[in-house]
Amino acid sequence: VTAPVRVAVVGLGYWGPNIVRNFYELDEAELVFVVDRDAGARERVQRRFPSVRGAESLEMVLEDETVDAVAIATPVSTHFELASAALQAGKHVFVEKPLAASSSEAEALAAIATERGVVLMPGHTFLYSPPVIKIKELIDDGEIGDILFVTSSRVNLGLHQSDVSVVWDLGPHDFSILRYLLGELPATVSAMSRSCVLPDIPDVAFINMTFPSDTIAQVQLSWLAPSKLRRTAIVGTRKMIVYDDTATEPIRVFDSGADLPDPESFGEFRLTYRTGDIVSPRIEATEPLSLELAEFCTAITDGTPLRSSLAVGLDVVRTIEAVEESLRANGEPTRLVAPAGSRRPEA
Amino acid sequence: VTAPVRVAVVGLGYWGPNIVRNFYELDEAELVFVVDRDAGARERVQRRFPSVRGAESLEMVLEDETVDAVAIATPVSTHFELASAALQAGKHVFVEKPLAASSSEAEALAAIATERGVVLMPGHTFLYSPPVIKIKELIDDGEIGDILFVTSSRVNLGLHQSDVSVVWDLGPHDFSILRYLLGELPATVSAMSRSCVLPDIPDVAFINMTFPSDTIAQVQLSWLAPSKLRRTAIVGTRKMIVYDDTATEPIRVFDSGADLPDPESFGEFRLTYRTGDIVSPRIEATEPLSLELAEFCTAITDGTPLRSSLAVGLDVVRTIEAVEESLRANGEPTRLVAPAGSRRPEA
Amino acid sequence: VTAPVRVAVVGLGYWGPNIVRNFYELDEAELVFVVDRDAGARERVQRRFPSVRGAESLEMVLEDETVDAVAIATPVSTHFELASAALQAGKHVFVEKPLAASSSEAEALAAIATERGVVLMPGHTFLYSPPVIKIKELIDDGEIGDILFVTSSRVNLGLHQSDVSVVWDLGPHDFSILRYLLGELPATVSAMSRSCVLPDIPDVAFINMTFPSDTIAQVQLSWLAPSKLRRTAIVGTRKMIVYDDTATEPIRVFDSGADLPDPESFGEFRLTYRTGDIVSPRIEATEPLSLELAEFCTAITDGTPLRSSLAVGLDVVRTIEAVEESLRANGEPTRLVAPAGSRRPEA
Amino acid sequence: VTAPVRVAVVGLGYWGPNIVRNFYELDEAELVFVVDRDAGARERVQRRFPSVRGAESLEMVLEDETVDAVAIATPVSTHFELASAALQAGKHVFVEKPLAASSSEAEALAAIATERGVVLMPGHTFLYSPPVIKIKELIDDGEIGDILFVTSSRVNLGLHQSDVSVVWDLGPHDFSILRYLLGELPATVSAMSRSCVLPDIPDVAFINMTFPSDTIAQVQLSWLAPSKLRRTAIVGTRKMIVYDDTATEPIRVFDSGADLPDPESFGEFRLTYRTGDIVSPRIEATEPLSLELAEFCTAITDGTPLRSSLAVGLDVVRTIEAVEESLRANGEPTRLVAPAGSRRPEA
Repeated sequence: VTAPVRVAVVGLGYWGPNIVRNFYELDEAELVFVVDRDAGARERVQRRFPSVRGAESLEMVLEDETVDAVAIATPVSTHFELASAALQAGKHVFVEKPLAASSSEAEALAAIATERGVVLMPGHTFLYSPPVIKIKELIDDGEIGDILFVTSSRVNLGLHQSDVSVVWDLGPHDFSILRYLLGELPATVSAMSRSCVLPDIPDVAFINMTFPSDTIAQVQLSWLAPSKLRRTAIVGTRKMIVYDDTATEPIRVFDSGADLPDPESFGEFRLTYRTGDIVSPRIEATEPLSLELAEFCTAITDGTPLRSSLAVGLDVVRTIEAVEESLRANGEPTRLVAPAGSRRPEA
Repeated sequence: VTAPVRVAVVGLGYWGPNIVRNFYELDEAELVFVVDRDAGARERVQRRFPSVRGAESLEMVLEDETVDAVAIATPVSTHFELASAALQAGKHVFVEKPLAASSSEAEALAAIATERGVVLMPGHTFLYSPPVIKIKELIDDGEIGDILFVTSSRVNLGLHQSDVSVVWDLGPHDFSILRYLLGELPATVSAMSRSCVLPDIPDVAFINMTFPSDTIAQVQLSWLAPSKLRRTAIVGTRKMIVYDDTATEPIRVFDSGADLPDPESFGEFRLTYRTGDIVSPRIEATEPLSLELAEFCTAITDGTPLRSSLAVGLDVVRTIEAVEESLRANGEPTRLVAPAGSRRPEA
Repeated sequence: VTAPVRVAVVGLGYWGPNIVRNFYELDEAELVFVVDRDAGARERVQRRFPSVRGAESLEMVLEDETVDAVAIATPVSTHFELASAALQAGKHVFVEKPLAASSSEAEALAAIATERGVVLMPGHTFLYSPPVIKIKELIDDGEIGDILFVTSSRVNLGLHQSDVSVVWDLGPHDFSILRYLLGELPATVSAMSRSCVLPDIPDVAFINMTFPSDTIAQVQLSWLAPSKLRRTAIVGTRKMIVYDDTATEPIRVFDSGADLPDPESFGEFRLTYRTGDIVSPRIEATEPLSLELAEFCTAITDGTPLRSSLAVGLDVVRTIEAVEESLRANGEPTRLVAPAGSRRPEA
Repeated sequence: VTAPVRVAVVGLGYWGPNIVRNFYELDEAELVFVVDRDAGARERVQRRFPSVRGAESLEMVLEDETVDAVAIATPVSTHFELASAALQAGKHVFVEKPLAASSSEAEALAAIATERGVVLMPGHTFLYSPPVIKIKELIDDGEIGDILFVTSSRVNLGLHQSDVSVVWDLGPHDFSILRYLLGELPATVSAMSRSCVLPDIPDVAFINMTFPSDTIAQVQLSWLAPSKLRRTAIVGTRKMIVYDDTATEPIRVFDSGADLPDPESFGEFRLTYRTGDIVSPRIEATEPLSLELAEFCTAITDGTPLRSSLAVGLDVVRTIEAVEESLRANGEPTRLVAPAGSRRPEA
């Protein structure tokens, strides 16, 4: 058996404690350090997990040669500095989504990781949620056919962020899911937004996307909404899926579609519509974060590939950037090009 | 008492017979002619309404001086020719939505109507549906506050049209409702579509819109969908509305929002979220088409203003045209400008 | 080909015109007479179906030897007199549910029909509704296993009857469906009711039932309810079904249950719960009344057995009677015994 | 300020730890002891709440004069012995529902509490859930009118108990809610059940109830069900309520009903149906157990009356007993009589 990966968690704000708890419970990991400037935050964690050491800053952790990996759960503006320091010190690094505050930062981190031969993993937790995994299976098995279009609504009342827009806050969920399901970077994005409550902090955004495969997508993000919606519809040539993350039955598969018999023989089109059974497949209740952090560990020990891969993380940052560019240009479509020499999209 | 308006109905396809039945039952109207090239279609109507005369073409009807008004329910490509002939003959004209196949055609019809001093009414029936009327009341009463944004999904499986796109088929519903509720022409539209089933017939379209008042809107139209959706969310500064035309309770009013207390006093923002009662107001069950045609009659006899006014009809055609232009330009936003001398939007 | 069955329809109130229309459209039938005391009701029907003759009373129809069958859609208190006259005259008879106002009346009708060798069919239309047919198939195929219990709610606001209770009005639906799905007469019923609005007209009733097979059932009937419910849950040893007659997906099949492994080996019980896929099978949209009346015709011409058989009709009346008896006895359970020599329940 | 009530919690199984946590967090209480035979269970609690002392049995706690009150969360079969010992020792006692395993036990406990002048409180937590409190307010304010009938479904898949039936397990919820909302003991109950999975452990029960005020009720309880239902409908003469404990909007108030104008003037009835607005009142998210335990403390210190009063606890046990008696008598209705000298129902 492999020795567990010795991990330090940096940032004990809203999300960090969840990472701490999951690493603590994982057989593949040994939680050795929690890092936060706030002594109170460290103490709250240490009271629950007394074996864990606290540190005020990342430096002391990086000097500790027994630490294999660092997980970063700090505000996105600090990701680059912290992650690059950890990578330079030869540590494997897990960074909460989004990977960095710009694609140039994200690419620089990727370059350091490659150079140092360590794992750099962005934390797109949704890729480990059982419904998303099930949808990916259905697509890969050919059940859905080619994906014609996707629409997604991710809206609720609150919580407004004061430093980033709804695009940086909620967008990574949809952009990573689309990237994972379609396996490609968008070709173009065009977007519209409004800052309804706080000045210059867009809290509603409408985003249209095209993909190289001809799939198109529409994403609606908002912190202002009458009721919580987490609804993604995926329309394929064979079947259609509705994924509602708030429902008891998160996935419903519709055996529905329009069929065009050989148009040659009729001189003109004759469409038939298929509406067959609807199936809600059984979805296991597993904590996605636990699966995600376990995969980080096995990527370190065995080199197993990551669902939430570096390529996904880079593409999500590129997508956000393109959305922001379109917003600045009043909705002009922005063209995305994966940089030369970048990993192939399907990686 | 005023004498009833003597009406001829042209076009007995899918929708025409509904117009026939409603005129027949209205006290304000007397149905005198049904016009269709297809003798079988005329006979089916006349069997049910034996007092009505049939005519093969519009000409003979226009020569009859006792005919006051003509209602046109033919394909949109024929609207201009039929409506202009009727208007030139001094008849009042009701035209099923959309008013014409282009804004130049629509404006030409408007000019003839003005010149001849007759009523020209586009048939935007949704403006007479009790839920839409109720929403308009709530907005006009200030219940909702300023409208921050609107999102609308109008999707179902089928029916593909072979001659027009989903934008011409389903778009007029949303565009007329938005025009009615907001009282203004969009400032810009940008759109994306795909022809999933029939070549060159877009069957899914994603449309983003800005308005002079800063309201933004997102509209999703599709003939391919896992299940029928008719859901419009209207988010205002005071309350929010969800309008679901397929639900037993078509309107739900949410006393929800985000409130920003005086930011001066705190140095930084402090948001509070309000989530109060949700009310489903009682909505009467009335046939919108009956209300609409009655209003056409009273506009003729009394000059009462129309909910589905000519200004609405013109703006809907302008909006569709702008969407089509954006589609041709791969999603470039199209700017809409109401022509000089046009009626003010609120007309 | 067989000659169509020549039918007279008696009673042109609320439901009769639907029977008229369906017979008119059926190839297997020829509608020859409509019978009603009200000349206006006859005229309204004859205007739509000009070939049909009108009659003021049943007598004249019974004298007409070319009439093969009579369909009776009058108030239940008149069923016995009309049906027995028609049967005595050698006509095949269809009677709207419930078959008669008492089991002695119903049995007397059955005896006449047997003696005269004609078909007597009660009109339990729900047995021809596609969801009920589908559920019966699932049960017969063994998909559901043994049926442990059934619960049913059939409630809405209105319409109060002034002559019969909610048990006579709504009860036949549930009692016939249970009789059809389970294939047996209840062993006992106990019931509770209240006359909330009109004196001595129970408008809410709660009915508990046991069956010889050990299945138990609970039925809730009401004309007073916050919202319309038509929900039947069928819990079997293998799967469970929810049948909601008001839903877009009327049937949902749950692959759920509790499994008890061999208790011997453990000394004590260990239950496991199964929650698998949920399937909404595609249900065809067919008018049940049309299927029902067609079956009446083929029963006459070919002797094909009836889904809504005489045995079902007799058992439904027996069940209502037992419910009424329990109500009179303040909820005492009433035992049902199929009379000696009666058809076997599964007939 | 009053000194906090010094409490011992007995029983650290499924529910006990919730009581522990809530007492720990309450200002009105000081948690001093946890009692359980299982050392491991005590340790798990003490690790989280280090200031709490552990005890293997209740005796040592009762000897401690600084302990004011005991909360019992053990199996129902042990309630009488533990509670009577605590009451005899002069302690105030909170007992998880149901109060005792029989009404004679429950009455004996009540007698001791009265004699010793201490508080005895049954833990009917649902009476502290915000939706139930809101419904009670609506009823007390006269919004609903007289309550005509109530129907309740409380079903889900699992968890089967091995020692008590579904009536003892789920019944106390509905029986206490009905007792609280109606303020009266049932007059009669009749019940039917089946042991579907484990022998002699009924896992589905159908219960009909009458009340002295003429209200009737139907309760459905089951551990076997296709999907979780927690739905109670309350039909009043003025309005109707649907309470769904699993929904985002737990209460919906329907301004619906049937109105009978003066029947004298018409000679016969003429009903009109009212269907007005539907309102989902805002419900606060508060933990009911915390409110309940706080009330236990203030009842001790200030003598404030209890929502979950001793009278409610006694009546719930009487109701369960009557249901069991009806089950043994194959559904015969059982008459309930509050013993002479008992507190008035509204207490």
